[in-house]
Amino acid sequence: MTLTTRQADFSARYNELVVDAQLAQNSAVRWCMVIKPYGFAIRENIQKNLDAMIKKTWHTNAYFPLLIPKSFFAKEAKHVEWFATESAIVTHYRLKNDGNGNIVVDPDAKLEEELIIRPTSETIIRNTYKDRIQSYRDLPILINQRANVVRREMRTRLFLRTAEFLRQEGHTAHATADEAREETIKMRKVYNDIFTNFLAMDGVMWEKSANERFAGADNTYTIECMMQDGKALQACTSHYLGQSFGKAFDVTFTNRENKPEFAYATSRWLSTRSMWWLIMSHSDDKWLVLPPALAPFHVVIVPIWKTPEDKDAINIYIEKILSDLSDRPLIIKSETLGNVKIDLNIKVDRDDAKSPGRKYNQYELQWVPVRVAIWARDLSSGAVEVYRRDEQTKESVTLDNLSIYISDLLPQIQSNLLTKNRQFRQENTIIVDTWEQFEAALDNGKFVYAHRDGSGETEDKIKEMTKATIRCIPDAEQFPQLIESGKCILTGTDSDRRVLFARSY
Amino acid sequence: MTLTTRQADFSARYNELVVDAQLAQNSAVRWCMVIKPYGFAIRENIQKNLDAMIKKTWHTNAYFPLLIPKSFFAKEAKHVEWFATESAIVTHYRLKNDGNGNIVVDPDAKLEEELIIRPTSETIIRNTYKDRIQSYRDLPILINQRANVVRREMRTRLFLRTAEFLRQEGHTAHATADEAREETIKMRKVYNDIFTNFLAMDGVMWEKSANERFAGADNTYTIECMMQDGKALQACTSHYLGQSFGKAFDVTFTNRENKPEFAYATSRWLSTRSMWWLIMSHSDDKWLVLPPALAPFHVVIVPIWKTPEDKDAINIYIEKILSDLSDRPLIIKSETLGNVKIDLNIKVDRDDAKSPGRKYNQYELQWVPVRVAIWARDLSSGAVEVYRRDEQTKESVTLDNLSIYISDLLPQIQSNLLTKNRQFRQENTIIVDTWEQFEAALDNGKFVYAHRDGSGETEDKIKEMTKATIRCIPDAEQFPQLIESGKCILTGTDSDRRVLFARSY
Repeated sequence: MTLTTRQADFSARYNELVVDAQLAQNSAVRWCMVIKPYGFAIRENIQKNLDAMIKKTWHTNAYFPLLIPKSFFAKEAKHVEWFATESAIVTHYRLKNDGNGNIVVDPDAKLEEELIIRPTSETIIRNTYKDRIQSYRDLPILINQRANVVRREMRTRLFLRTAEFLRQEGHTAHATADEAREETIKMRKVYNDIFTNFLAMDGVMWEKSANERFAGADNTYTIECMMQDGKALQACTSHYLGQSFGKAFDVTFTNRENKPEFAYATSRWLSTRSMWWLIMSHSDDKWLVLPPALAPFHVVIVPIWKTPEDKDAINIYIEKILSDLSDRPLIIKSETLGNVKIDLNIKVDRDDAKSPGRKYNQYELQWVPVRVAIWARDLSSGAVEVYRRDEQTKESVTLDNLSIYISDLLPQIQSNLLTKNRQFRQENTIIVDTWEQFEAALDNGKFVYAHRDGSGETEDKIKEMTKATIRCIPDAEQFPQLIESGKCILTGTDSDRRVLFARSY
Repeated sequence: MTLTTRQADFSARYNELVVDAQLAQNSAVRWCMVIKPYGFAIRENIQKNLDAMIKKTWHTNAYFPLLIPKSFFAKEAKHVEWFATESAIVTHYRLKNDGNGNIVVDPDAKLEEELIIRPTSETIIRNTYKDRIQSYRDLPILINQRANVVRREMRTRLFLRTAEFLRQEGHTAHATADEAREETIKMRKVYNDIFTNFLAMDGVMWEKSANERFAGADNTYTIECMMQDGKALQACTSHYLGQSFGKAFDVTFTNRENKPEFAYATSRWLSTRSMWWLIMSHSDDKWLVLPPALAPFHVVIVPIWKTPEDKDAINIYIEKILSDLSDRPLIIKSETLGNVKIDLNIKVDRDDAKSPGRKYNQYELQWVPVRVAIWARDLSSGAVEVYRRDEQTKESVTLDNLSIYISDLLPQIQSNLLTKNRQFRQENTIIVDTWEQFEAALDNGKFVYAHRDGSGETEDKIKEMTKATIRCIPDAEQFPQLIESGKCILTGTDSDRRVLFARSY
């Protein structure tokens, strides 16, 4: 195992973490990754919890086609520019043996119209809504889909940038613009809950500038998080699409005044890319760090013994611990943490169970938040050693107190990670008024609040000069302290508010 | 709404059910279907419960690539014959504007090696195992994946036959043949549990004949169910693959004797095709019929009122019912049924809430198993009308008894459906000894137990003459009464046991 520091090479450190903790690996196809069981279990915890939250907002799940006709991409002009250029195109439907033992594409089996593997699902979903919506009584339609999407990437990166990735995508249709906009903001809050309470990531919730919006959106709301290298991460976006897709796909309805109108739309998604964010928000130079709310296992019990007699005695002891812990299916009261999961693998009498080294090492690399070590020599005392991963401290706890101790400990670890993440961003955010301060702050990896004149040209110029973009525009109600007049950091023209600038992924 | 009888046209009746109950619809792409929210919720209940059962057998979930290099299909000869012939082939990675406003495939963006959208995942998964397995200590590997797969279908049919479908697929690797075979049989039992306890379908669990095995499998175990038209349905299969994939993908390990050996493999899957089975096992000529264990909603409460005063009074009444029911999050004790779900839509003050007709109609078509009607005129009596969908009977129940009444009722409906399904198969299964009886029984849509000589040629001939195949070969321990000597129904040659013949889907 190599150990690169985050500071020396943030990217290389990430690659090490993904390999060491067995989260994912490259596949035989450059386009796609293999998500390994430990990585998938973390991802499944995000997905499962988000799905439950989405269902509470009255969304229902449905499933739409993987393959989209080429002609659909021509319908929404901005959309095709973004998505159709780099995608996987299905042109044939049959392989054949060429007679020399080679498998080749059968040239006679050409599709009449090429099919694109969905790079995103707006077009196919909106086309379906068309038939479902006649009157305002059929609205709103609140649909969520879990699906794989494909966009060709030149340089791939596990989780962060692979051609195929998995995601949840929400697509709604409404009878009024107000209702649609309300939905957009409501769902951004759902995302914020997932980030704060599960991923232990503290983001800045605001609106995107026109330059940075999703293709075809009237408004894009975002959560901007700070990575440990100071770069901004657009963690989640929620889009108000207005009537653009309604017009492109002819989704009309009869409104309350009995007049035809185009439907108002919103969309949003959270993908396996969040795994990268999660890993690089918390992990340090030693190992992966995981919020307990997403950890596949919460507790690992490690028995340490030498003689067969010790082994038998320890196994009886462990049975007692397990029954004690499982008698309390909800020892963690917090809704976000759910049941405590214990790796029961220790019960299997493996050849390597004798030496704790290999096991310790595996659980350290994969960051099980709590380790309970049971030494044969301590059996008589009724105590075990509880190791807390986030603070790297050990405590001797009696068996009677163990489950209460652990149920108190896990939410502490969870909130500890969130606090650290929040503090890091706060400590690395500054307000500047001059161009020199602005450039210096960006070079030092800061989030910068500065004035701008509001024009797209200025934004482009700043990006060209500094590689920094406007990450979001403050909401007047939420951030009144940033709503003050000043002069644009570049042009000196009037500005009505400070906005967040940062370099980003 | 048209009403075809199952007897007049089983296929047409199916199409009506899928449309009327809003389960799925065709999409703009012939290859793919849209699974609508009600259909997806049923499917999600199957998937969620199966996933929990699979996890209990120590399988972990993981995710493998959607796209598979063409060359992988050449590695396992039988495998390529089955799957590679009709599949979706990605040849290009870019669209471009041709200058005349048309979106075309960029001929310069041709892939070096074509990629096939997975028709099944054996090849890509086994290739990954190769690197993971060094020693017998790394085994077994028990992996489950949930994924979409694509196989071109000429004539598509919603759920039953669409090019894209969703499924769970299990792929394991073992150090010994015995362990792998045991796993195959164990997982067939898990499938049988899902069928019996959730889908309320009673199948015959046996082994497939050599002719009917999965390509590349040494043994295929199946569950054969009977559709209402008497045809057999191979509801679920579990495959022992021996070392064939281990050899094809060079998956070797060092065994306990420190010698290199090829890994032993198993695989299996359950797909959205099960939706078709579920629908056509239970539904009748009037409507969809759903086992409560899979129904998206268990109870619908329908208020019936005329004046605004009645409406207010009814709403207070409903609040009481709801709080009473939700105070008992586990009013159904059965593990399989889980929590009772109530459609809360009735609380929304819709324009159509005044007339129960439209609502009644919707819930009848979608078969919510229990309907509670509340008439304004009955408020003073403290009683409600509970309608049981499977028997179409109404009962007056007092509010105090309502939740206990419903918690008793739902498991009754569930077991009622299973009993009906089992009886139907038993009543339509016969034992025959002559060719005339054999042909007549098949023409009458029966499951037939008959002798055969065990050769593949005879099996082929019988299939040619009658369209019937051997659905499965009895297991001696499970079906001792079928293990008796006799003469082959076609050739008169010696036979050591009767096997199950039927026409099938």
